[in-house]
Amino acid sequence: MSAAASLRDTLRVPQGPVSIAGFDSGAKPFGGAAPDHDAHELAALQERLWAEATVGGSRRILVVLQGMDTAGKGGVVSHAIGLLGPIGVEYTAFKKPTQEELEHDFLWRIRRRVPGPGMIGVFDRSHYEDVLIVRVHDLVPEAEWEARYDAINAFEQELVDGGTTLLKVFLHVSYDVQRERLLRRLDQPDKHWKFDVADIDERGRWDDYQSAYDALLERCNTDAAPWYVVPADHKKYRNWAVAELLRETLVELDPRHPHPPLDVEALRARLAPPH
Amino acid sequence: MSAAASLRDTLRVPQGPVSIAGFDSGAKPFGGAAPDHDAHELAALQERLWAEATVGGSRRILVVLQGMDTAGKGGVVSHAIGLLGPIGVEYTAFKKPTQEELEHDFLWRIRRRVPGPGMIGVFDRSHYEDVLIVRVHDLVPEAEWEARYDAINAFEQELVDGGTTLLKVFLHVSYDVQRERLLRRLDQPDKHWKFDVADIDERGRWDDYQSAYDALLERCNTDAAPWYVVPADHKKYRNWAVAELLRETLVELDPRHPHPPLDVEALRARLAPPH
Repeated sequence: MSAAASLRDTLRVPQGPVSIAGFDSGAKPFGGAAPDHDAHELAALQERLWAEATVGGSRRILVVLQGMDTAGKGGVVSHAIGLLGPIGVEYTAFKKPTQEELEHDFLWRIRRRVPGPGMIGVFDRSHYEDVLIVRVHDLVPEAEWEARYDAINAFEQELVDGGTTLLKVFLHVSYDVQRERLLRRLDQPDKHWKFDVADIDERGRWDDYQSAYDALLERCNTDAAPWYVVPADHKKYRNWAVAELLRETLVELDPRHPHPPLDVEALRARLAPPH
Repeated sequence: MSAAASLRDTLRVPQGPVSIAGFDSGAKPFGGAAPDHDAHELAALQERLWAEATVGGSRRILVVLQGMDTAGKGGVVSHAIGLLGPIGVEYTAFKKPTQEELEHDFLWRIRRRVPGPGMIGVFDRSHYEDVLIVRVHDLVPEAEWEARYDAINAFEQELVDGGTTLLKVFLHVSYDVQRERLLRRLDQPDKHWKFDVADIDERGRWDDYQSAYDALLERCNTDAAPWYVVPADHKKYRNWAVAELLRETLVELDPRHPHPPLDVEALRARLAPPH
């Protein structure tokens, strides 16, 4: 049993300068091979969050998943988010922006998908791509992406003020494990459709991406919306850890069933069987 | 083992006049207590449907769930649709229309939520409410709702022509079982938030609703988009049956992994470890 109070305490990125190279992507902190999560527990917590919103509650959760290719965003969605069930979960994969999206501020498409009260929103990639691929490939002038860190912090503060708890997760996979996973895809013809040759080009810019991650993990690691680094070289641990971060978040929110005033006896009488 | 070829054959509503009262809501046809579904099988089928779409496939599925209060739409979504995992599933609960929605044609809000290629869309209530509650409560003139059956058939034919397979499921619960379930909600304070007093008013119009269902099950039961009646008095059977209808639909579509041309050896060489 770890002495740490929670997995969130353990995986939270410390304030200050960050070098992601200093984080062990193969670690299994906080108990390692923990028991599988009870889907019923998570579903019950989620239902209570949802129930709260039916009587005016404003709380909601936004899970932001980032990571290099093969880090396992899809696996986390299937195996951790998948524990929750479809009602109350809104999943969004942000791809290359469309022409319409590019004609708006970078947060425009993001704002359209933030979760409503009682919901758990899941972003598979997010506004952070606008200080990642955009920065690495100089898709906009430096002055423009440079201003985005503050814009992101202000946006996230706004969400928090409106009742959102953010769970920002960087899935940390090593250069070597990425190589193994890409090679494995090449070995399996049924996985070729997942293979994008551009992924290998991006891998060639590994260090640039790590620097871009270092910057955002430092500059957007606010108390209101902190970052967590989940070691992602081991798939089972990775999936468990994200589910556990979500469970801890729900437990801390401690949503309760509302108890609206009902005249139970009168209602029971109305349900008496017909003569 | 049933002699029927499939659960879809068994549960499909026959062409011609329909009286839902003639269907046994407590039945467990086609094997009854069948084994639980293998979530991996369903997830693998769904992934292939999704994969097809990445190379231009247009096929997709739209599950339409209808039923009286307590019939178990939510339970089906959790336990049958929940087998699929969040990626590739788009769930929409259609509630009382907003002012903006009412200012448009009744299909406007529906069209905005039809699934894209490779997706499985799930409608929890649907355009059929526009010939159910609307008809029972005379929310629009009869001439208007009367015209909607044909409009719905034309709309669904359009979806089918575009590559959608519709799975329209009526969850059939009896008047007595509804009563039991409503009473059970009253017995459990933590379920009171689910209790809408209006549900009892609607129950008072049971026969009107059954007639409205009879009409749509007859008039919108096209070969392109047939209706299935799932007996819903037994929750476990009900959930299993919807999962099985979905499995059969996916198996019949038989989606395949695309095999895009990849120069595997060249890619492997590019992934050689750095010196």
